[in-house]
Amino acid sequence: MTKTGSIFSLTTPAVLIDETIVDKNIARVQKYMDQTGLKARPHIKTHKIPEFAKKQLAAGAVGITCQKISEAEVFADAGIPDILLTFNIMGDEKLKALKALHERIKLSVVADSRETIDGLASTIDTGKPLDVMVECDTGGQRCGVQSPREACDLAQYIAEQPSLKFVGLMTYPMPNTEDSVEAFFEQTAGLLKQAGLECPIFSTGGSPSLFSAERSTIANEYRAGTYIYNDRSLVRAGHCGFADCAMHILTTVVSRPTEDRAVLDAGSKALTSDLLGFTDFGYVVDYPEAVITGLSEEHAVVDLSACTKKPKIGEKIRIIPNHTCVVSNLMNHVYVHRDGEFDRRIEVAARGRVW
Amino acid sequence: MTKTGSIFSLTTPAVLIDETIVDKNIARVQKYMDQTGLKARPHIKTHKIPEFAKKQLAAGAVGITCQKISEAEVFADAGIPDILLTFNIMGDEKLKALKALHERIKLSVVADSRETIDGLASTIDTGKPLDVMVECDTGGQRCGVQSPREACDLAQYIAEQPSLKFVGLMTYPMPNTEDSVEAFFEQTAGLLKQAGLECPIFSTGGSPSLFSAERSTIANEYRAGTYIYNDRSLVRAGHCGFADCAMHILTTVVSRPTEDRAVLDAGSKALTSDLLGFTDFGYVVDYPEAVITGLSEEHAVVDLSACTKKPKIGEKIRIIPNHTCVVSNLMNHVYVHRDGEFDRRIEVAARGRVW
Repeated sequence: MTKTGSIFSLTTPAVLIDETIVDKNIARVQKYMDQTGLKARPHIKTHKIPEFAKKQLAAGAVGITCQKISEAEVFADAGIPDILLTFNIMGDEKLKALKALHERIKLSVVADSRETIDGLASTIDTGKPLDVMVECDTGGQRCGVQSPREACDLAQYIAEQPSLKFVGLMTYPMPNTEDSVEAFFEQTAGLLKQAGLECPIFSTGGSPSLFSAERSTIANEYRAGTYIYNDRSLVRAGHCGFADCAMHILTTVVSRPTEDRAVLDAGSKALTSDLLGFTDFGYVVDYPEAVITGLSEEHAVVDLSACTKKPKIGEKIRIIPNHTCVVSNLMNHVYVHRDGEFDRRIEVAARGRVW
Repeated sequence: MTKTGSIFSLTTPAVLIDETIVDKNIARVQKYMDQTGLKARPHIKTHKIPEFAKKQLAAGAVGITCQKISEAEVFADAGIPDILLTFNIMGDEKLKALKALHERIKLSVVADSRETIDGLASTIDTGKPLDVMVECDTGGQRCGVQSPREACDLAQYIAEQPSLKFVGLMTYPMPNTEDSVEAFFEQTAGLLKQAGLECPIFSTGGSPSLFSAERSTIANEYRAGTYIYNDRSLVRAGHCGFADCAMHILTTVVSRPTEDRAVLDAGSKALTSDLLGFTDFGYVVDYPEAVITGLSEEHAVVDLSACTKKPKIGEKIRIIPNHTCVVSNLMNHVYVHRDGEFDRRIEVAARGRVW
């Protein structure tokens, strides 16, 4: 492999990250968070790379968000001092890892049930209580307590545990549900006040609605991941343009069986099958009229019928994925470049950390 | 991590492989291939594990199939002596790797264009010609020449290259297209005969229609991958039953936000978003009425409304994935067990080999 050079000299498929765009995306979002008075706590699921988390912290983020304990270990090892784990941690091995992590960094975690809290409480020593937030379901219909009443009850239960400290409310909202987040947080805040419980953190997140965050008068922390790279789904959401997308999958046309069909050497093992509401599998930057109609594991089938110019066999073309985070999880390395000249390969250090 | 024990003691999500079922699946398919006089050349994409390829060879397979050159390197390093690469290999780095591989094992490769053949021909030394097959599109609408005439022309072009040897025809058929495979192969065979070209290999494949392979009078080699583990899609295809599925994803119920909703710690990073025509994301073995309605990267949302008995928070349950091959590509390791007692963790050595 060439050590530096044009991205088009790379063997395909290869995931390219434009560092100039990464820097711009981080700066843009941090500036917005600063203006709106929100603490930024970026989710590392998108990049899974400590070097990029450090860029986010240097720009002004208060810490990072991880979803899994084994991911958090990678970032703690790399020197990240403040991590929020937005997952119900349970099971002996994970709780043991949580305890070890808590002893060496500023760790916080979420819970949405007494069972989760019991596990945390019996693991952590009372000498150094663990910060715990209550996860609230504000319409996402995934994890989270279902009502402000439940949120308050669980907060009280956390506060009763000598080894735990209740520190706030956390939600992962669906896009455009700011009103229900606001109502849930406001009502719970009222109940917590009545119960005499302090609630310093109101944490929300998500990249698609990121630039609507100013509408909330109560949220004070924002977790977002995808904005660092951006992707086709965020272009559709109006968050950014294609020129703001830092991740491209470089791929080669390996077959042109018919006038209107090209086959690329990037399948679901490179692009993933995530549609996110699209009916095709990515945006072909170099041939915008081309449509990726199907993926098998190692091939993408592309319909060229709308293209006036068509790619040749052997030609390398770039794709912006529907969903960037899941692509990172497939790759051992990404190639970092500025304006098409790559200078290094970075390991996706937290890739494949499943628990 | 416990070194041995019950699979239910493993930290989740974890991919379990039942070796008893693996052995049975290999034996069953090899027996069928032997009875029908087909040479078996299993595709390793499903397991990506040399140890399992060796089981397939020990049972009687003539060699293996890989899709990517970097996968083939892993298996050659592990001592597999005979590999077919069913991919148009192009680009300097890949051709260099191909040449190196050709010098140490029995390698064959496919091509569907003159451009691919030119790359192979100029890479390989004339002293040890490389075996090349023509890939035919028999209805799969992916790669492959479009007609018997084109297949014959390309075979002749291969035969004209001093460093290459034409050895056969290869197709990846869609399920239930045996007739068009047969017609394509028969007609091309006729043309090749007229052209004075020998064609020793007629290679077809695919697990879903595997047990229809006997209908072909011309195919003499069969490439299939999924049959070693089986999955929900193969149960639907009538190839096997759920009891024949060797791969399970062990996952923990981490949240029960409502009476009818469970959330598991296995999302698209463990199950993948591959639907393969299903509308939900896997078969919940331990709660067959449960429906996995949605996946985010680290969570599965499960609808329990049809379940009479419902799982508790902390409970571990097993899922048979829609598509097993793509799960292997996400995992650094799988846990091998017999009847629920695991004895070792195996590295998925060819995972993430994207080119």
